[in-house]
Amino acid sequence: MTKWVYNFGDGSAEGEASMKNLLGGKGANLAEMSNLGLPVPPGFTITTEVCTAFYENNKTYPDDLAEQVATSIKVIEDTVGAKFGDEENPLLVSVRSGARVSMPGMMDTVLNLGLNDVTVEALAKKSGDERFAYDSYRRFIQMYSDVVLGVEHYLFEELLEIHKEENGFVLDTELGAEDWKELSQAFKQKAEEELGHPFPQDVNEQLWGAIDAVFGSWMIERAMVYRRLHNIPHTWGTAVNVQSMVFGNMGDDCATGVAFTRDPSTGENAYYGEYLINAQGEDVVAGIRTPQNLTKESRIAAGSDMPSMEESMPETYAELADVFQKLEAHYRDMQDIEFTVQQGKLWILQTRSGKRTAPAALKIAVEMVHDNIISVDEALLRVEPGALDQLLHPTLDPDAHRDVLTKGLPASPGAASGKVVFTADEAEEIAKEGGDVILVRIETSPEDIHGMHAARGILTSRGGMTSHAAVVARGMGRPCVSGAGALHIDMQEKTITVGGRVIRHHDIITIDGSNGEVMAGEVATIKPELGGHFGELMGWADEKRTLKVRTNAETPMDSSAAREFGAEGIGLCRTEHMFFDADRIIDVRHMIMSDNEKGRRDALSKLLSVQRQDFIELFTIMKGLPVTVRLLDPPLHEFLPQKEEDFLDVANAMGVDLAFLKRRAEELHEFNPMLGHRGCRLGISFPEIYEMQTRAIIEAALEVSQTLGEAVIPEIMVPLVGSRKELEILNALIRKTAGEVIETSGEKLDYMVGTMIELPRAALQAGEIANEAEFFSFGTNDLTQTTYGISRDDSARFLDDYLKADIYEQDPFVSLDQDGVGELVRIGVERGRATRGDLKVGICGEHGGDPASVEFCHRVGLDYVSCSPYRVPIARLAAAQAALKQE
Amino acid sequence: MTKWVYNFGDGSAEGEASMKNLLGGKGANLAEMSNLGLPVPPGFTITTEVCTAFYENNKTYPDDLAEQVATSIKVIEDTVGAKFGDEENPLLVSVRSGARVSMPGMMDTVLNLGLNDVTVEALAKKSGDERFAYDSYRRFIQMYSDVVLGVEHYLFEELLEIHKEENGFVLDTELGAEDWKELSQAFKQKAEEELGHPFPQDVNEQLWGAIDAVFGSWMIERAMVYRRLHNIPHTWGTAVNVQSMVFGNMGDDCATGVAFTRDPSTGENAYYGEYLINAQGEDVVAGIRTPQNLTKESRIAAGSDMPSMEESMPETYAELADVFQKLEAHYRDMQDIEFTVQQGKLWILQTRSGKRTAPAALKIAVEMVHDNIISVDEALLRVEPGALDQLLHPTLDPDAHRDVLTKGLPASPGAASGKVVFTADEAEEIAKEGGDVILVRIETSPEDIHGMHAARGILTSRGGMTSHAAVVARGMGRPCVSGAGALHIDMQEKTITVGGRVIRHHDIITIDGSNGEVMAGEVATIKPELGGHFGELMGWADEKRTLKVRTNAETPMDSSAAREFGAEGIGLCRTEHMFFDADRIIDVRHMIMSDNEKGRRDALSKLLSVQRQDFIELFTIMKGLPVTVRLLDPPLHEFLPQKEEDFLDVANAMGVDLAFLKRRAEELHEFNPMLGHRGCRLGISFPEIYEMQTRAIIEAALEVSQTLGEAVIPEIMVPLVGSRKELEILNALIRKTAGEVIETSGEKLDYMVGTMIELPRAALQAGEIANEAEFFSFGTNDLTQTTYGISRDDSARFLDDYLKADIYEQDPFVSLDQDGVGELVRIGVERGRATRGDLKVGICGEHGGDPASVEFCHRVGLDYVSCSPYRVPIARLAAAQAALKQE
Repeated sequence: MTKWVYNFGDGSAEGEASMKNLLGGKGANLAEMSNLGLPVPPGFTITTEVCTAFYENNKTYPDDLAEQVATSIKVIEDTVGAKFGDEENPLLVSVRSGARVSMPGMMDTVLNLGLNDVTVEALAKKSGDERFAYDSYRRFIQMYSDVVLGVEHYLFEELLEIHKEENGFVLDTELGAEDWKELSQAFKQKAEEELGHPFPQDVNEQLWGAIDAVFGSWMIERAMVYRRLHNIPHTWGTAVNVQSMVFGNMGDDCATGVAFTRDPSTGENAYYGEYLINAQGEDVVAGIRTPQNLTKESRIAAGSDMPSMEESMPETYAELADVFQKLEAHYRDMQDIEFTVQQGKLWILQTRSGKRTAPAALKIAVEMVHDNIISVDEALLRVEPGALDQLLHPTLDPDAHRDVLTKGLPASPGAASGKVVFTADEAEEIAKEGGDVILVRIETSPEDIHGMHAARGILTSRGGMTSHAAVVARGMGRPCVSGAGALHIDMQEKTITVGGRVIRHHDIITIDGSNGEVMAGEVATIKPELGGHFGELMGWADEKRTLKVRTNAETPMDSSAAREFGAEGIGLCRTEHMFFDADRIIDVRHMIMSDNEKGRRDALSKLLSVQRQDFIELFTIMKGLPVTVRLLDPPLHEFLPQKEEDFLDVANAMGVDLAFLKRRAEELHEFNPMLGHRGCRLGISFPEIYEMQTRAIIEAALEVSQTLGEAVIPEIMVPLVGSRKELEILNALIRKTAGEVIETSGEKLDYMVGTMIELPRAALQAGEIANEAEFFSFGTNDLTQTTYGISRDDSARFLDDYLKADIYEQDPFVSLDQDGVGELVRIGVERGRATRGDLKVGICGEHGGDPASVEFCHRVGLDYVSCSPYRVPIARLAAAQAALKQE
Repeated sequence: MTKWVYNFGDGSAEGEASMKNLLGGKGANLAEMSNLGLPVPPGFTITTEVCTAFYENNKTYPDDLAEQVATSIKVIEDTVGAKFGDEENPLLVSVRSGARVSMPGMMDTVLNLGLNDVTVEALAKKSGDERFAYDSYRRFIQMYSDVVLGVEHYLFEELLEIHKEENGFVLDTELGAEDWKELSQAFKQKAEEELGHPFPQDVNEQLWGAIDAVFGSWMIERAMVYRRLHNIPHTWGTAVNVQSMVFGNMGDDCATGVAFTRDPSTGENAYYGEYLINAQGEDVVAGIRTPQNLTKESRIAAGSDMPSMEESMPETYAELADVFQKLEAHYRDMQDIEFTVQQGKLWILQTRSGKRTAPAALKIAVEMVHDNIISVDEALLRVEPGALDQLLHPTLDPDAHRDVLTKGLPASPGAASGKVVFTADEAEEIAKEGGDVILVRIETSPEDIHGMHAARGILTSRGGMTSHAAVVARGMGRPCVSGAGALHIDMQEKTITVGGRVIRHHDIITIDGSNGEVMAGEVATIKPELGGHFGELMGWADEKRTLKVRTNAETPMDSSAAREFGAEGIGLCRTEHMFFDADRIIDVRHMIMSDNEKGRRDALSKLLSVQRQDFIELFTIMKGLPVTVRLLDPPLHEFLPQKEEDFLDVANAMGVDLAFLKRRAEELHEFNPMLGHRGCRLGISFPEIYEMQTRAIIEAALEVSQTLGEAVIPEIMVPLVGSRKELEILNALIRKTAGEVIETSGEKLDYMVGTMIELPRAALQAGEIANEAEFFSFGTNDLTQTTYGISRDDSARFLDDYLKADIYEQDPFVSLDQDGVGELVRIGVERGRATRGDLKVGICGEHGGDPASVEFCHRVGLDYVSCSPYRVPIARLAAAQAALKQE
């Protein structure tokens, strides 16, 4: 005879945690807690095999199921000392679905099953609270009618609204026992009207109705779609859990509460929790009554005069503390526990690993290693890499007052306050004098870089998570809120209007880049602490990971920060950023404006010395590590002035007339600059630019290795290659130039030449391209743009629609699209390595700092990821986790 | 003993056509002609195996090579009756390279080898023309020094210029025998100075020098790069051809000419050609003397009073006609033959399949089938699909008034009108702006090619039917009148004077390349006649091909034209083109400007009736055939006004203020519209647009099938899909809307829903997407843009650089990139069909009308291609050829 039903509760169970496939996740956990000897309200689980058999046999149950259920009910009755449907002492149960994994569309919980016109009276008597009994009854009728019988919810809500209106009530709490009694009759009546037959009064009919509903919900459309999307076979089936109800609101010897075995906010190893005397579970969470502290110590710390549970129910508390120890020891993690005390008896309703803040996660994980509770590997897997971000930036003091104006996108984490300024130049001026500013722009452009650097934070009204402002701010570690569309920024009047309020030039505002909030005035912040536990965990991560972590950086400040955060080299130095400095942009423009090679060469010769100096500084900071320098990438028109007066300045400085300058700018205009004359296409058209840059890199590398006696390994990277021939031509140019410089110096220097793989064609042709490349670096920003056909700068317009419609699970510019873009990365790696076995392969898009993407990079066998300095620790931990998951 | 050297000539040969791998292309053909009994100047071929042995053995020749060469020289001497290096009767030879396929970088021809200070005198005596002899000698010294000895060309040019200056000569023709004699000594002197040793007087030393040079050129950089790019192994090697010289300029019993076995312009089955008495081969081509007709008939037709060869040299002509018959019968194709008559003896120098106009190609191919010379399959392969273009274009209306200025040679058929321009650069400039020009030149050179391409037609005052202008124009399908000697072209003044009239720069003229007429002003044209041979060939093509051919069209005019050209449906109807009409753009703008759904729906309801009417017209024209309608694709801002005054008009019409309108336009601005809020992204954000379009399509289809009693099968196509979910949502929307319309009508209607595959991600995810699509249409324009990361609109800036540097063999927007984009197409087809076996797959980019791309589409198993109406016949023929090539 097949066993279809497994009992559990109050100290023992027929199942256990390992029987999740048979009992479902919930059933297995209830069994596990019971086996631990914990006081779990008794109940039973109807197995997933019943579900499978049900659908295999034309929706009929196994013959002996009814008998086994009846037997199990009897077991509960005996344990609890109550009888299902009894007129004096009725047993009430809950019915819940529970598959191996939870999924949408499955039947909602039905509580208080077993109530009818007779048992409700018994409940009133037993609890001494008629109001409670009838409120429970009408809730049961509504819930059961909706979930099991398919009578729509709003029909009952209407009756309640009418009753309140007629009686002049506003809140539910104003209704008394008689009101609920009247309503429960009205609800029953309404159900009968809708159904054409009476609401079931037979408790066994109620029970089987609920069981049918759980199994029926397994095959509804929504659940089937979900399973198809997640590759879950329909044959897994769901289990049904039937469990006796317990009540924390039957008097002053009753209570209900929520507890954590450690402090989920700080991670401190002390019990933490709240409880309420004579209350239902939802009262603690709902915030209608202020809950009391669990422990005496916390009560004192909070300065509360309401007694703690430790004080008011010392025996039950001791029992609870014992449960805490058992559960944490058993699950080897901080637990989040729900409990109820019914007439002096403690019941444990649920336990699960508790959610925690990043500092708490770190502290708990490291301390549990110290206490030999978990291994180093487990500790590494316990901390969410993305959460480390919170630890690296100043955060707002949670206790400080916030006058929130609006919310934009959390584009770059951290909090900052400062005077509102509207131009990059002003930001720089005030910062020079030591002032704190927030740079406010409709959107930013490369011309704003110096101002973004000078500002404490950046706020834009347009642009998404990967807009220029967001990307640059993250790279610099500046807090940024982008796309705050509710702001009306008037650049002329220098005002921000939002919700009827006006923020003026030089008013102080605060932004929180971790949640997107924009606040009026200054809000106090807390500085990050990077020592101790943080350092220890990072050390463990470095031992585990095989993926190297580099940084995307070009300024000395960013490079130093990244090295402090543990970067193992530079994976992407964007040389164009070096061109925007005020003292050199004029030479850059000179170069662009020249319509002949001679003119370009003259301007480039001036740029040579400043570029060389840039590289000398960078190489000095990064000594001993590899530095990948990307040759000029953006279209030349990006360096041109935007405004009339700037045009005039440039014309004067260059000694050409304005009309010529504007015509040249017009000529350089592009419809789709992202797909335009940029990247290696510039190198093909104007080889003298790449020649200058190569010269600057090699000369700097020679000088630094002479001065410091320690070599840098420059890796010269050609952007936007789409075919072997492009790289063949530029590789030859670079090697010729570098060779000449090295020969002239009489020294020796190793360097590499490689390419970005950032176009679909480059990934497909990687086998050919690898003939000319010593390394590949996947530029997943551009690769995402071209694979999806979506411009980062313009995607904000429809991204929301796409996320809402579940078309994208995540913004593909934030987390690598592993199906589409990822397939191209895999193809690129495979084909590249097939041609050149020792090809070094990395990634340098924004994705290099996204944990899921880092794991992907590890799986496809990349050598390194490169990310913005502040994401280096995140990548280090994510890489360690990836290595552990693959073990 | 290995045979290294193969003799040929004058009626027999040791090799034959099938020995191309051993003898190279040229050597094998010379042998073949000899075997046919034709009078080929005797010579020998040194095999490609010598080349291979040479490089395998450290650049040394096989031991017995010298002896075999000496023997073969002896054979020539015996045949010709002259001796190599003889003081009385010297044998002169040419030396040429000749691999299996011709390739750049290989050694140029050396002519007149065997001349020295002694033999030149003998040549003078034998020819009776001392000027000719010394001119030949100095040419030989210059050519040999340059090609074999590496003395640069310009050094000799300088000497010639100095001599002319000192003697007051302007043209080379002014120099006499003494001048050339003097110069040949000076050339020898210069070569000695440069080389450090005398110019070789020993004829065997000359010969081996030339042989060395041929083999040496096999391994020069340029040839090696070419072979690598074309996958030609270095081991193929090159052969060397040594052939006795013949001269057509030794007196009035000498002649030289070029002939075709059929008229290359019309295809008429009549000998066709030109010759010159007492001339060198290059004189005929160069256009310095106007050549005479070959046959009496053609002389009379041309109204020439210069005797034809048939009249002036009847016996030789008869011999030549015999050769024509033999060659055409042997090669089973119209032949282009070069011949020389030396002192009454006919020599055949070369034969090859003759280049021909499209009408000629068509006529010859079809007539050869009728005459059982070739099969239908061969005929289909004989016509270049792209050349059909020429047949589809207009000719002059015979009834229109013609103001004929003069008559030249009918060098390339077709009629054209345009502004007179005198330089290629100007032709290109004006054409870029959309202007029609006729390029007028005294004669053309390779430097004019870009201008000839840009021009509507070409007119020259000098040069025959085989002049540069004529040959190139025929190849390009441009009308051309050549050798219109009555025109006095003044390049300085930019005028043409003819019969007392002056045509000025930018005046309009018309040329008729079919009869040679040059007319003032514009003359009306009529549509081409597509019956007869054209219809017959197309019928054969349709029987062979398996690929269907549809058209890209949305106007009734284009659709009708395409149906006449044989389109089997519409593969792409771009609905947005329908939005630009003046009477509806205002409603479109209304829709765009609305910032809420209600406003958009109001505007859309007005558009519904006009869209429905569009589809009714289209479906009526296309009745019985499938019509693929693409839902709205471009970003909305494309419909907005550009200019200030237009903005004002729209604001007035809409009754909104200008500032609002401009702000909305500003909001819609995109940095990279190609990658922006367009395609199905519009459908996701504004479902009401796609809903309206679906309604219009289905209502129109219902109406047309009721009215005509013949169904159309609308295929509703969603653009720019990148993931399954997008299409899932829109498919549901379309089916819901269509279902409602059909249900309301009470009729039945079949329709399909499918998608474009135009993003790399769509191709990669095709397996998923096919779950929601009944058909795929590859949008290879966008797919090329995203795969390469290149915007079509901006690529012009660097495309030239890329073509020059051989990075692209062809503009990837013209001919499909089969490696990169093609791989994605293959992947898309495979994965799509794996999910849905009966998935209909086509292509609707510009590539659908490019023959190479059509062949690719056939190979990867597409169901159809769709192209612009005028390219439909091209695609039909290309599809037939693809099927034949695969057999």
